Amino acid sequence: MILILRLPSIPFVEISQEATNYKYLNFLPACPLRTMHLGSSFSLSSTRTAYFRARCRRTPPPLPAFSGSHHAPQQTPYIFTSALNPTPTYTTTTILTRSYSSTTKPSSTIPSAAASEADHFDWRKMAELNREHLKKDHKKVFEHNRAWAAHQTTQDPDFFTKLSAGQSPEYLWIGCSDSRIPAEQITGMSPGEAFVHRNIANLVCNTDLNVMSVINYAVRHLQVKHIVICGHYGCGGVKAAMTPKDMGLLNPWLRNIRDVYRLHEEELDGIPDGPERYDRLVELNVVEQCRNIVKTAAIQQSYARNGFPIVHGWVFGFNDGLLKDLEVDFESMLRKVQKIYDLSESHEH
Amino acid sequence: MILILRLPSIPFVEISQEATNYKYLNFLPACPLRTMHLGSSFSLSSTRTAYFRARCRRTPPPLPAFSGSHHAPQQTPYIFTSALNPTPTYTTTTILTRSYSSTTKPSSTIPSAAASEADHFDWRKMAELNREHLKKDHKKVFEHNRAWAAHQTTQDPDFFTKLSAGQSPEYLWIGCSDSRIPAEQITGMSPGEAFVHRNIANLVCNTDLNVMSVINYAVRHLQVKHIVICGHYGCGGVKAAMTPKDMGLLNPWLRNIRDVYRLHEEELDGIPDGPERYDRLVELNVVEQCRNIVKTAAIQQSYARNGFPIVHGWVFGFNDGLLKDLEVDFESMLRKVQKIYDLSESHEH
Repeated sequence: MILILRLPSIPFVEISQEATNYKYLNFLPACPLRTMHLGSSFSLSSTRTAYFRARCRRTPPPLPAFSGSHHAPQQTPYIFTSALNPTPTYTTTTILTRSYSSTTKPSSTIPSAAASEADHFDWRKMAELNREHLKKDHKKVFEHNRAWAAHQTTQDPDFFTKLSAGQSPEYLWIGCSDSRIPAEQITGMSPGEAFVHRNIANLVCNTDLNVMSVINYAVRHLQVKHIVICGHYGCGGVKAAMTPKDMGLLNPWLRNIRDVYRLHEEELDGIPDGPERYDRLVELNVVEQCRNIVKTAAIQQSYARNGFPIVHGWVFGFNDGLLKDLEVDFESMLRKVQKIYDLSESHEH
Repeated sequence: MILILRLPSIPFVEISQEATNYKYLNFLPACPLRTMHLGSSFSLSSTRTAYFRARCRRTPPPLPAFSGSHHAPQQTPYIFTSALNPTPTYTTTTILTRSYSSTTKPSSTIPSAAASEADHFDWRKMAELNREHLKKDHKKVFEHNRAWAAHQTTQDPDFFTKLSAGQSPEYLWIGCSDSRIPAEQITGMSPGEAFVHRNIANLVCNTDLNVMSVINYAVRHLQVKHIVICGHYGCGGVKAAMTPKDMGLLNPWLRNIRDVYRLHEEELDGIPDGPERYDRLVELNVVEQCRNIVKTAAIQQSYARNGFPIVHGWVFGFNDGLLKDLEVDFESMLRKVQKIYDLSESHEH
């Protein structure tokens, strides 16, 4: 859904936690493009009125208690939060000054001047502004990159010479594309230590040439010693498997998670608490993807010959940043899988 | 190819740069499993003889000049490098003591005692040792993870609270699975800033449900502002497109790169220098994958409405750790693509 918000004469805006339930787009005119993150702030010094379109991402939680003491007086923050109507398809919101309050009224019932103004706003022109902004925006990444490269050379003058020589990673990491799980950072792995594949909901499908090529190359050519499937609690992809929603092109991909649910229907149906059931589905999805890896000829043959790779199932938690080892019993899983999926060519050894 | 090496009575081994052209496996008995990286070292204090199997990864370069001054006298390193025969299928190598020399002779012509010993070695038993070793090996990752989580909390007590609230990444990163290119590290991006997909040779194929789901979700749901295709010089996948080799299951995946070659055959054939031609193919592959993204309805429609995302083509260089912007002219590319692939539904706007 799209919300049109009007913020009259606001010099400084602070986004509270609840506001992150919305994704703000097309913020005008001071910032041609702003995605406002949790706790972020921005100023509108040279403008009296700002518009932006906001997309509601999920139903906001109840309003929190406001404490003015969180903010320095000179900042005079204007906080807009879940006072926004959680369900409208088209809404005008005016943020009032110097207090924790806002009005949210569907524009269809209260055709305010602001709503009318927003209706006639030239979003195409704004898109032009966005384009200009975006062309410059990514330059900071190159600044970071130069700083990183200089730092690495300072730490070890031969760092890039070594890196050029080739890779011998011990790990294959198959994780979620979610931006909050940088595999190398959370595991402390250095460049060269983990061959990485990331997709939506860390899935391993036998007809997916993408992930199957990754596994084949990692096992047969790089001869990795460990394969990690790492899921995470709060996975949007896994959550979609528990809600009746048409996701368009994403349906066939996400259906793999529903298939996991089906395989473990009895256990999952037996968990009365929604979030707890959802957490368990995240874990079971990881275990099933481990099993999908074990079903491949590459893993079965390499393990019979070399004793590796070992397949691990882990889950990352946003609440504490810790990895949980699901302690998949790899050998037991392999034996059970091979009852039906034996591709080890073990008669040759 | 498999090499069997015998190292008599060696207390300390230092792996020189040239040795990284081999991938060492099944190192016995002091280290049941060692992958030896460039510049790494290990000790064999309690053993007189060690075996390992080594797989030749590419033809080693010529022998470098040896300078004893690189090593402290007490280390008495034994260096084995590209003196190993680059082409045998079965070889015994004895590393001589206290000097930069080694002998490499095919075992078929010189059936030494060492080769015979290696022939009869119980590789299965070694695989058992490997299994035990591997079960313990990955625990260090969890130690790193705990240290990382503690560090984040020290830096910002609300770090994980914010992380739990959701993601609003501005970037979609499509890069290579190569272990040497941790996307977030080289760009300085924090958790939450980049939705990440990594596959072999950073390919975007229209029939690949994996990457297409990633793009669809990133553009339509997360509404990312930038999409980066990041290739890298020295890409093994891209190199395969220039060598006549049957890669088995990988053939259909890697064929996409050969298709890039075909599209730019005249330019590439016109580059006489092999490495230079190979670098150019890496760049052209990135540009073609950018084009593949621009062909999607998700990008065309979002760009028409919002002015984003912008698609960028970058290449990472191992030699200096720097990102090179190929300066893809996104708008020009979009216009050309839409001559045939117009899915923008522009008549609606």
